[in-house]
Order: sequence, then structure tokens, then C-alpha cells
Amino acid sequence: MMSLRRSWCLVCLLCGSPVILADGTDNQIFELGDFTFESGATLPNARLSYVTHGTLNASKSNAILVPSWYSGDHHGYEFLIGPGKALDTSKYFIVATDMFANGFSSSPSNTPAPFAGPDFPEIAIRDNVNAAHRLLTEELGVDHLRAVIGFSMGAQQAFQWAVSYPEMVEVIVPICGNAKEYPFGFVRLEGAKSAIMADSAWKEGRYDEPPEAGLKAIARHWASWGVSQEWWRQEAYRELGFDSIEERLLAAEASWLARDANNMLWQAKMWQRHNVGDTPGFDGDFEKALRSIRARVLLMPSDTDLYFPLADAESEHRVIPDSTLMPIPSIWGHSAGAGAGPGDAEFLNQSIAEFLAEK
Amino acid sequence: MMSLRRSWCLVCLLCGSPVILADGTDNQIFELGDFTFESGATLPNARLSYVTHGTLNASKSNAILVPSWYSGDHHGYEFLIGPGKALDTSKYFIVATDMFANGFSSSPSNTPAPFAGPDFPEIAIRDNVNAAHRLLTEELGVDHLRAVIGFSMGAQQAFQWAVSYPEMVEVIVPICGNAKEYPFGFVRLEGAKSAIMADSAWKEGRYDEPPEAGLKAIARHWASWGVSQEWWRQEAYRELGFDSIEERLLAAEASWLARDANNMLWQAKMWQRHNVGDTPGFDGDFEKALRSIRARVLLMPSDTDLYFPLADAESEHRVIPDSTLMPIPSIWGHSAGAGAGPGDAEFLNQSIAEFLAEK
Repeated sequence: MMSLRRSWCLVCLLCGSPVILADGTDNQIFELGDFTFESGATLPNARLSYVTHGTLNASKSNAILVPSWYSGDHHGYEFLIGPGKALDTSKYFIVATDMFANGFSSSPSNTPAPFAGPDFPEIAIRDNVNAAHRLLTEELGVDHLRAVIGFSMGAQQAFQWAVSYPEMVEVIVPICGNAKEYPFGFVRLEGAKSAIMADSAWKEGRYDEPPEAGLKAIARHWASWGVSQEWWRQEAYRELGFDSIEERLLAAEASWLARDANNMLWQAKMWQRHNVGDTPGFDGDFEKALRSIRARVLLMPSDTDLYFPLADAESEHRVIPDSTLMPIPSIWGHSAGAGAGPGDAEFLNQSIAEFLAEK
Repeated sequence: MMSLRRSWCLVCLLCGSPVILADGTDNQIFELGDFTFESGATLPNARLSYVTHGTLNASKSNAILVPSWYSGDHHGYEFLIGPGKALDTSKYFIVATDMFANGFSSSPSNTPAPFAGPDFPEIAIRDNVNAAHRLLTEELGVDHLRAVIGFSMGAQQAFQWAVSYPEMVEVIVPICGNAKEYPFGFVRLEGAKSAIMADSAWKEGRYDEPPEAGLKAIARHWASWGVSQEWWRQEAYRELGFDSIEERLLAAEASWLARDANNMLWQAKMWQRHNVGDTPGFDGDFEKALRSIRARVLLMPSDTDLYFPLADAESEHRVIPDSTLMPIPSIWGHSAGAGAGPGDAEFLNQSIAEFLAEK
């Protein structure tokens, strides 16, 4: 029995799936070998971590990919997976991947010199998509995806799948996430990153001891963004078992202190830079990339998301050829998309199940 | 000629009134003597800084108070003051005060030991109201206020005036601010404060050199909150003359680097703690305090304010006996209330002028 270190997902500190920190779990590793990132850097012995649920059918038509989100891991989508849920394991073969830099797949924290820590290559969302494409085609025998379903940075990956591999993906469901990072999100993440980097103990990423003050600072920064203003006004943290704001913030600090600072910075930078318009062949033309999407698209923003505001999903909806806009009615802000609030998981399960059943 | 150091107001880096940093300006000082704060601490030789515009009429019925906001000073409301504007100097006698800790009135940065820097007393919004009450009644001969008009933390002061001195105030106009700080705002300010405090150069407030990394971190934190997500999506920073997001962020850093870290922290803590329900006589009953307001109230939230969301103003509107809700239609978020966006200053001038003219 391997030892597990449990923590909370940073989205809301109480999504359906507690995060299991990467010191040995049930995950499998696909060896990518020498993996060349979009930046041009080549990482030797690169690894992609994943788990699967269910069985690939004979016609290989029932695979669904669920890529991990910021601070999340391959457990993140368990609120959607299982008998009677949207991703019914008796019907679908589900592949849950870990993003680069999340501590399971190759990351600043688990890579030896000369690519350790701050020397880890810069990562693009497309790098994750390309790595997962190799896993699916080379290892799992999957040439067709019934769907890619992703929350937050997982939604960024879902959009990228539809643009990079239009013939391979039938459906995408981007939940609380966009096809590019808009300037607001970029700036918000600057604030988050700078909270860690303000701590001199961060040492430009060459720390021996964690930069605790910086991690606590980003925890407090992060806390106000993950849910809505209305959530706080209604003191919904009490529903999570916290008796005061300070208790909630201390729990957030504890969760961040369990993270590796460079991993979190590398994921944040990847998040900031994403734009499907930068896919080779589109010359930076964002709308052209959106118009190229052949998959049926179910856009599921949250009504009250402060990270990925409704208006951004609405504007993408107007450009994508075959898209349905289905906002999650919730005061749980961004974390609604991880099924955090009462009714959110049910809404997501029902909406996704119906959309998949349409054809 | 005294030397002036100019900077930008942090609200948006381009409101009507560039901030003049406190090393000598046109302001006057009212000596408060030994001033006892709500916390119980007594500050010797306390000072209240202010300027006036126009003339008090013979019946002493035309005085209007405009109290400063976070990072602002007595210049902040100049977009409302002057011939043909809402606060016409031929009609009104306008008193513009500086909040404690803004660098003009008594502040961590300008007070000698044993109350210098981190040893400065904790401040309440009510302390500013009480100090201004003494200025008006003891120095300026004003026993009646036609109006108190305030933006952001100035709005907190306007609400407090209506609760503390109900017989003295005819009208209040809280712009982009609430009668208490709701949990969301408290948490957001925790993120802001912790960005400074993560910098070990802050030294618990006992710095000789400014904590530059911390000030830069809070600058980046702050940048995403002051305007709306839509503002960023439309890249409205270009209207301010910035060619890129990074240029905008570097200007924000420069503006924060010109500030004193403790001053900014003391103002933030004052902001966090405010609640008119804590006024003596109300036993913490927020709604009772709102119901006690006798002034006519013009509530002017911004449609897109991330600090003080519309819903909070709406809920206060439902409780205050004689209130009018007039949201500012703008994508300039919080900074709309400082007249920052195209049309915002005109909307505020017109709305306030009409409300004052009603009776």
C-alpha cells in the first residue's frame, strides 16, 4: 500500500475529488521518451501520467478524454464518472490525463537536472494535447474520441483538441474555460504568480525550503477568485464546515503549502499563454481557429465565474459553427464547474449525458 | 514653490485627478491635538489634512464634504468640482478631506515614534468621520452638510456620516462603495495585503528601504480588480495610451512603488473592518443602522464593479428608507466611480446635480 498525501483541490477546497499529491498512487505512466515541446526544448525521458476507467469497445468508438486542470489531477472528474453518471463506465472508456507540471506527469518538481525546477521547459497547452494524442494512438489503440471534456485548463485542452485534431473528436465540452486566455485572465494570473515571486525564499525557483510566505500569499489571493462575490456574501463557506473566513483562509494556505511553487508557476504560465489561434496553420487568427472546429461543442461556463466570465463564452459561442451554450446556474463561481456547489454536479452530469446522447 | 511628486491614483492609473504625493502641496492642516481612535489608542498631535473650494454662505447651508478614497487624496473629486459641474463652486462650499494613513493626514509614514510605521494605531472609518466632524464644527463653522459624496472608501465614510450624524446630513451619495465590507471584499483585501507582507523586505513594517517586490506584487494583484473583465477583453488599456498589458502593469508597479507600504496596509485594514452596524448604539445590527438613516441617499454602484458588486448596493437599497439606485453604466468597473471611463464623469456629474436639485 503506497502512502498517499491528500490535500484539497485549490478550486474551492471541497470539490468532489480531493487531490492526491504525487508521491505514489494508482496512476499509470506512459513513457514519452525524448519529448520536444512547442518552445523547441526537448525533455529526455518525459512522462505522461494517466488512469483509465471502463473498457474500450470493439469498434473503438467509446473513448472519452478528461484532461486535468490547474492544481488538479487524474481524480478531478470522478464526480462525472461511474454508473448512472454522465461518464457511465459501462458505456464509455474514460482516459484521465495529468497535465505537465502537475506533479504526476513530468514537472519541475520531479525532473532531474538539467531540467529540474526553474530549468524545466516552458509548456504550452498544445504540448499536453500532443502528449495525450501519443498516449491514445500509440499505447491505448484509440484513434477516435467520442468526447473531450475538460474544466478550466482542461477546457483549454478540450478546445485545443478540436482545433488540432478536428477529424478525431466528435464532441467537446469546455466547462468554465476558454479557447484563449483573455487579457483579464492574464493579468489576474500575473497577480497570483507575483505573490509567490515576492517571497525572497522563492530564490528565482532555486529554493531548498518552500517559499512559505509566498505560497500563503497566493492562497489568500486565490481564495477570492474561485467563487463568486455572492458566495461570500451568503457566507457559503459555512456549508464547507468553516466557521469563519479566517478558518477558510487557513485551510487554503495549508492546501497551497502542500504544493510545489515552481509546478504552480509553470502551470500558471501555460494557462496565461493559451490561444488556439497560435495552432500551426492559423497564423494567430483566433476566430479562424474557432471556425475550423468540426466537433459538436457544449459550452458550460458558470453564471458567476470570475476567472472565465460568461461574456467570453458567449462570444466564442457566436463564432464556433456547432455550439450549444449551457451556463451552470450557480453562485459557486468558477468552482461550480468542478461540481462544487449543491446541484452543480447534478446539473453537469445531466447536461453532459443529454448532449452525448443526442447523436 | 514646493516640490510635488506626482503619481497615478491606483484606481485606474488615469482618473481625472493625478495623485500628488505628500511632500508639500496646497493642503491645509487642522490640528486635532490628542486624538483618541475607536481602538482606544490616543495619538498626540494628530493632523487632519483638507482643502476647500467655494465659500460658505451666510446661512451656512451649502457645505458639501468629499472624503478621500484608498490611495487617493484631496484632489480626487476634482472631476466633480467647478463651474457647470455637480459641485459648482459658485453654489457650494466644498470640503475635501484626506483619510488617515493616506500620507497627508496622520499616517504611519509621517508620524514620529512611538507611533511611527507599524506602531501607528489601527484606524476605523468612524475615526475619519469624527475627525472631519471636528474640522467642520470647530474650525470651519459648519453644523449642517448639504451632502456627503464619497467614492469607494469615501462611500464608506458617507454611509457612516448618515448613521453617526443623522441630523446633520441632508444627502449622501455613496459611489462604488458599501455600508459594510462584505466577506468577499475582506478576502480580496487579504490577498492584496499578503502580497506586500510576503516580501521579507517588509520586515513586519520596520523597513528602511521599501519592500519593492511586495509593492510590485500588490500592483499586479490590484490591476485585475480595478476594472472589469470586459474592459480587459476590449483591451481598453489602449485608451490610456498603453500599447501592451505589460506596459500597463509596469505603470501600475511604478505607481505602487511611490507609495508607503504601511500606509497602504493601514488603509486596507480600515477598509476591511468597516461596518455601520458597529456604530455605538446599534449593537452590531447592520440593518438597524441602515434603517436609521434619515438622509436622502443616491446609491451609485458601477454595473461592472468587481470590488463592490451591484448586488450589494441593491441589497442596501432595499433596506435604506429613502434611497435611489442609479448604477453607472460602464465597463470601467470600480474605476467608473472615479470618473475614469468615457462618459463616466458626465454621468456622475449629471446624476448628482439632478439629485441635489430635487430638494
